[in-house]
Amino acid sequence: MTDLPAEFQLIARHFRPLAGPGALELRDDAALLTPPPGRQLVLTVDAMVAGVHFLPDDPPDLVGRKLLRVNLSDLAAKGAVPLGYLMTISTPKGTPDAWFAGFAAGLARDQVEYGVTLLGGDTTSTPGPISLSLTIIGHVAPGTAVHRFGASAGDEIWVTGTIGDGALGLAVAQGRLADASGFLLDRYRLPQPRVGLALAGIASAAMDVSDGLVQDLGHICRASGLAAELRPDWVPLSDAARTAGPTWLETCLTGGDDYELLLAVPPNRVDALRTEAARAGITVTRVGHFHSGPAEVMLRLASGESLAVSKGGWSHF
Amino acid sequence: MTDLPAEFQLIARHFRPLAGPGALELRDDAALLTPPPGRQLVLTVDAMVAGVHFLPDDPPDLVGRKLLRVNLSDLAAKGAVPLGYLMTISTPKGTPDAWFAGFAAGLARDQVEYGVTLLGGDTTSTPGPISLSLTIIGHVAPGTAVHRFGASAGDEIWVTGTIGDGALGLAVAQGRLADASGFLLDRYRLPQPRVGLALAGIASAAMDVSDGLVQDLGHICRASGLAAELRPDWVPLSDAARTAGPTWLETCLTGGDDYELLLAVPPNRVDALRTEAARAGITVTRVGHFHSGPAEVMLRLASGESLAVSKGGWSHF
Repeated sequence: MTDLPAEFQLIARHFRPLAGPGALELRDDAALLTPPPGRQLVLTVDAMVAGVHFLPDDPPDLVGRKLLRVNLSDLAAKGAVPLGYLMTISTPKGTPDAWFAGFAAGLARDQVEYGVTLLGGDTTSTPGPISLSLTIIGHVAPGTAVHRFGASAGDEIWVTGTIGDGALGLAVAQGRLADASGFLLDRYRLPQPRVGLALAGIASAAMDVSDGLVQDLGHICRASGLAAELRPDWVPLSDAARTAGPTWLETCLTGGDDYELLLAVPPNRVDALRTEAARAGITVTRVGHFHSGPAEVMLRLASGESLAVSKGGWSHF
Repeated sequence: MTDLPAEFQLIARHFRPLAGPGALELRDDAALLTPPPGRQLVLTVDAMVAGVHFLPDDPPDLVGRKLLRVNLSDLAAKGAVPLGYLMTISTPKGTPDAWFAGFAAGLARDQVEYGVTLLGGDTTSTPGPISLSLTIIGHVAPGTAVHRFGASAGDEIWVTGTIGDGALGLAVAQGRLADASGFLLDRYRLPQPRVGLALAGIASAAMDVSDGLVQDLGHICRASGLAAELRPDWVPLSDAARTAGPTWLETCLTGGDDYELLLAVPPNRVDALRTEAARAGITVTRVGHFHSGPAEVMLRLASGESLAVSKGGWSHF
């Protein structure tokens, strides 16, 4: 009985070093968490499956970091401060130890960067592809979490960073697009969650852009009962995305995997947004506005022409 | 943009009815949870993969209930009160709507039975088998959670319910054992988590029996730095397990999937255990004791003979 099964050795070697306060060194059935006094908890979970959400030969450290970061991005959209996470890892028999080592090394690096620790987890085998899940816990002052609903007619639409790099990076990974600098591939593999942007009192609604700017803007429209007018020529593109050329613009606006924040901002809060973004060192750009009307997204081109957006793309009136 | 993708329809139809306070109707990026004032949170997560943790043709309502119950069992081992849960569901394309309906119906039933609600989740596709994860949150009075460590020499070893039915039920499902009444198969498919047993001040250490009584007793031995003497003839067996006969005893003691509680109880707390168990309507049985020595499990037979237990079974000295 002093021999430990392989699963326990795996946990001890790779995951115990990630464990933080309350994790009981991952030796127990459950973790303990004393909530920060007077704060409200924010919880979210995402799954990632090899072949669906990442490529089977992606470097394992980047897989670990992406798993953590897509969840951090959801916390960022609430204006929440990250606290800790739990994780499940299902791997095919024969997954090399180096994969686990790389995966854990990526998590270790981002734990430091984002101030979170591992609270608990479960490792299992699977006859299928690597399947991961991560539940993250953050906190906000009670009642200050920003939602998808809450935008008003007249609120401006703002985004952080640049839009479309993730979708173009996937095209690079699939060999459909050149990327001399590696910038786009890096943006696809390693999102930059915009944690640290204090949204309370600034944004009337927010979400992170994971399904594509147009589709996610549609989510805010439906949740808030508003129409949106999006200005494609205002959407901030990286130099690499501009280099790809105008034929890729639709991919940029609908492709997903941006993990930038999409914000509804009342006009009288725009100065506060600019100040807070400057403090956090995050670029923000206005890309349109909300108005009364059926919950849908219209594209207003620089020419003045309007395009109605349908699922998966757009079409002329 | 008013057409919702299939994923959102799936969530709306099957999972929104499970959403509780703070889940924001599953319409947002994250859930909100106001922790019960003055309580410590207890968190745990388990993954279940078709073909590993359940059989692909298991009824989906039982799969959902088992997923929830194995996590409730971990909370029970801490003496925690269940609060809510988050979940990920990765399914192959073409998984019939009836599977999701059944899965959600099972969860709905157990949500009522155990007083928990769904806080959030993520649904994805997978090229592999159905892969599930569930993170559950409960609470305890600060400092009262029971751990795997903490047992002392002289503490008695107690278990709830009957041991071995889960492992025998798996043998039934695999066609290796007859089960005229269906009792064993039911025990395998639908664990009975022992939530509601107030362990604080009674058990010096505890865990739930998921890997098998002998192996899990070994976990408490290692965590507490003690040896254990287990009395096989004292281990409580169901009528169905007794009917299977003595050749199945080793399976009962090492086979796992019991989801009963394994407790270390100081002799002067045994009366309190009996009183609390009677109050909760849960049977408890003494099966041995801890003593000083190397962290291992010895079986003491009724004949007085001792057996050393090795990984996966046991052997004579």
